[in-house]
Amino acid sequence: MSTASEPTTTGSGIALVDRLRAELGHSAVITDTDVTDSYSRDMMPLAPYGTPLAVVMPTDTEGVQATVRACAAAGVPIVPRGAGSGLTGAANAIDGCVVLVLTKMNEIVEIDAANRLAVVQPGVVNLDFRDAVAKNGLFYPPDPSSYDWCTIGGNLATNAGGLCCVKYGVTTDAVLGLKVVLADGSLLKTGRRTVKGVAGYDLTKLFIGSEGTLGVITEATVSLKPLPQAPGTLVAAFNDTAAAGDAVARVVKEGLVPSLMEIMDKASIDAAETYLKTDIGAGSGCEALLLCQSDSGGEVARRELTAIEQICTDAGADMTYVTDDLAEGNMLLQARRVVLTALETYGTWLTDDVSVPRTRIAELISGCARIADEVGLRIAVVGHAGDGNMHPTIVYDPSSVDESERAHKAFDDILDVGLSLGGTITGEHGVGKIKQEWLAREIGPVGMRVHRSIKQALDPENLFNPESMFSMFPTPASQLERSAGS
Amino acid sequence: MSTASEPTTTGSGIALVDRLRAELGHSAVITDTDVTDSYSRDMMPLAPYGTPLAVVMPTDTEGVQATVRACAAAGVPIVPRGAGSGLTGAANAIDGCVVLVLTKMNEIVEIDAANRLAVVQPGVVNLDFRDAVAKNGLFYPPDPSSYDWCTIGGNLATNAGGLCCVKYGVTTDAVLGLKVVLADGSLLKTGRRTVKGVAGYDLTKLFIGSEGTLGVITEATVSLKPLPQAPGTLVAAFNDTAAAGDAVARVVKEGLVPSLMEIMDKASIDAAETYLKTDIGAGSGCEALLLCQSDSGGEVARRELTAIEQICTDAGADMTYVTDDLAEGNMLLQARRVVLTALETYGTWLTDDVSVPRTRIAELISGCARIADEVGLRIAVVGHAGDGNMHPTIVYDPSSVDESERAHKAFDDILDVGLSLGGTITGEHGVGKIKQEWLAREIGPVGMRVHRSIKQALDPENLFNPESMFSMFPTPASQLERSAGS
Repeated sequence: MSTASEPTTTGSGIALVDRLRAELGHSAVITDTDVTDSYSRDMMPLAPYGTPLAVVMPTDTEGVQATVRACAAAGVPIVPRGAGSGLTGAANAIDGCVVLVLTKMNEIVEIDAANRLAVVQPGVVNLDFRDAVAKNGLFYPPDPSSYDWCTIGGNLATNAGGLCCVKYGVTTDAVLGLKVVLADGSLLKTGRRTVKGVAGYDLTKLFIGSEGTLGVITEATVSLKPLPQAPGTLVAAFNDTAAAGDAVARVVKEGLVPSLMEIMDKASIDAAETYLKTDIGAGSGCEALLLCQSDSGGEVARRELTAIEQICTDAGADMTYVTDDLAEGNMLLQARRVVLTALETYGTWLTDDVSVPRTRIAELISGCARIADEVGLRIAVVGHAGDGNMHPTIVYDPSSVDESERAHKAFDDILDVGLSLGGTITGEHGVGKIKQEWLAREIGPVGMRVHRSIKQALDPENLFNPESMFSMFPTPASQLERSAGS
Repeated sequence: MSTASEPTTTGSGIALVDRLRAELGHSAVITDTDVTDSYSRDMMPLAPYGTPLAVVMPTDTEGVQATVRACAAAGVPIVPRGAGSGLTGAANAIDGCVVLVLTKMNEIVEIDAANRLAVVQPGVVNLDFRDAVAKNGLFYPPDPSSYDWCTIGGNLATNAGGLCCVKYGVTTDAVLGLKVVLADGSLLKTGRRTVKGVAGYDLTKLFIGSEGTLGVITEATVSLKPLPQAPGTLVAAFNDTAAAGDAVARVVKEGLVPSLMEIMDKASIDAAETYLKTDIGAGSGCEALLLCQSDSGGEVARRELTAIEQICTDAGADMTYVTDDLAEGNMLLQARRVVLTALETYGTWLTDDVSVPRTRIAELISGCARIADEVGLRIAVVGHAGDGNMHPTIVYDPSSVDESERAHKAFDDILDVGLSLGGTITGEHGVGKIKQEWLAREIGPVGMRVHRSIKQALDPENLFNPESMFSMFPTPASQLERSAGS
């Protein structure tokens, strides 16, 4: 791990900066370290980051192509990024790279209400895009927690999820086609504007979630849903985590599909209550809170929430409450939304991301409680219960080497528990620079070999985000060879 | 184009057959041409097909791995196939190949109702799988028209759609993970059992729809939906195709999502009425029929269908009829389901597959009527109106060279119209051996280059289905070089 410092710009680095300035304009290429530092890392405290040669901010696809061609010619790696809301260090700079910032490509190119689709550039903020399509009576479902500042490009690069996934799926489910700048600077168009289409390999979904390692997405055509009804809300409190997990499993088994189904454990509830200076009604013995919404509208939503309420009661809930008042519903959800902010009262948070079968949620939460005891740190679990995607969040003091080590251990131990429950090491945040060995463990040597062969096919010079997701040089021995040979 | 004939088995071919028999057992390897002929082609009359060296029918993943290793060692290409219901020749044999038939791998390995997922082998018939999960109150949506005999493996290879896609998506939307035998015989596991997961590239969706060119799928883990309610049905007759197209566009724009929305043009209605020896109530001036279902249940379904009925009336429908009686609904749908069979009364059918934006359906239908006039052949258009996926079906006499040529011209002209309307050359059937030049036209040289680089990365010896979807040797000149060199 390195920290930000003055770059040692070589002669070839200066030549590259000059070429980029000549082609994109002086103001699009930034080398002032006061500025470039702020583009050198995302929101994951554990991830290493380096010092970029320059930050480049193109305003159109041609600018991206020019940047890629110039960097390819100079042999300088490119780290693409959006707003920097990521949680894996995937957008973190490496020493001497060009950070390619897409935030100035922030145009909503088209909203075609008749065909329920839109064309959007990567720099558009998720919430701005949602608001714009909503004005046309349409709905763009993916809603990561950072939706008020993350960009569509970052959402595409990480295949971002969010709270609505339980009913509406993740980013990849909403995308019809892409424009992608490849490693040789050529422009690939994938997919189409039609709802269905099987002409060739599904390249669209290959680039989505590839964390900027295969190309730079400069435009996306996305399908939109009808704008749903204002949701009704249910909250249910349990004095037993297993009972809450059981309620989730029963909701799934009964075929009920709420539009939101979140879970908070005791540590999350405590943090939210302290922060909000209010009793959120969970009661003193409350070990887990379920929050559900239905956006099916009127009588149907009421019926869905009543059915879920009955399941919660049968599973042993101490308290349930249903409202179809939107403002009250938002207030109830507030407890869920403030958890990370609330945890900052206690220290720095480090949020993990593990997805388990929906029948194993309670076991994951109890596993996290055990790990918290073992490492002696506060771990709060919040998560998208409806799809089994949990975010155990560790609170620690990063200025303490000992606490940092324990936090890192807890982070890994949580992944270990997730895998042992039949889960995956990342539900929606990605691999980035922090879970590479875990990716290898989850997908095995054949999976890694296929990843490397696809990377090699599309990016033979290892130009794009070369130290994210996986290394092209699998063993320490060959890494040494590479250093010696370069 | 070649036709079936006695194979000229070389010494190395005999050695391969001997090795396969030694490894898989004598009965798993068939060389009797009376039998192998029946595995040499699918349902697309235009596609070329050759004479296989042998048909191999493994019963497990290890058998597939042994077959792939033996063929790779012998340099003999493999054409994987299921039931042979395909409509592009993708499963057609090439001379001297091994046809790898997956129909004996037909076990439903697991149904996990609590997590709404199942694990299934490729040889399971779609309908058998649907029935099995339905017994657990669950629903596997993809329902290609051949669902009573096509297999899950073929559905995966082609990313098959069907009638339910308008509400439930296509095959790729239902798959969580795969087991795939790669070109070196190793076994790749993609994806996971959780609803969400972003660990690494989305290899699952790369293999789905790759038409057997990248590997052999030997198992799939699929997500299941709650079993929907028995559907209500609406039929609406229009004396103007444009009005029917307008009704479809308005349904989309209003945000209504029926569980089925099919369109039939006049030629289809006539064929169905003649075949069924009944007036299906469309009336004499009827130019287009819309058939819709809603499976949302009870009052909600009634409300949805009433809203669609109102839209149809506003758009100019001459007749509308709604029923919530399942048997009556099935009877009404019968007209749609018998069209291909009904067309056989007039000759051999050749069904095309083009997907257009949902606002352009009427233009596609009128384009097909114009083409029918130009080539002097009957073209009946049926299609999945709700997602713009149309199947113009040309009727001709294959024993007439002239009619065959005109049919082929019509087939191409329809694709041309589809592309000019912003559509794609295949909505759900695939490229196979009949739309290769059209694929190149739709995705362009950069797209083709990416396809070839991925194929090269995963199948460097061009072992899997080498003459389907695209050629690794793009120009005739290099093809000649290849022949000369081999």
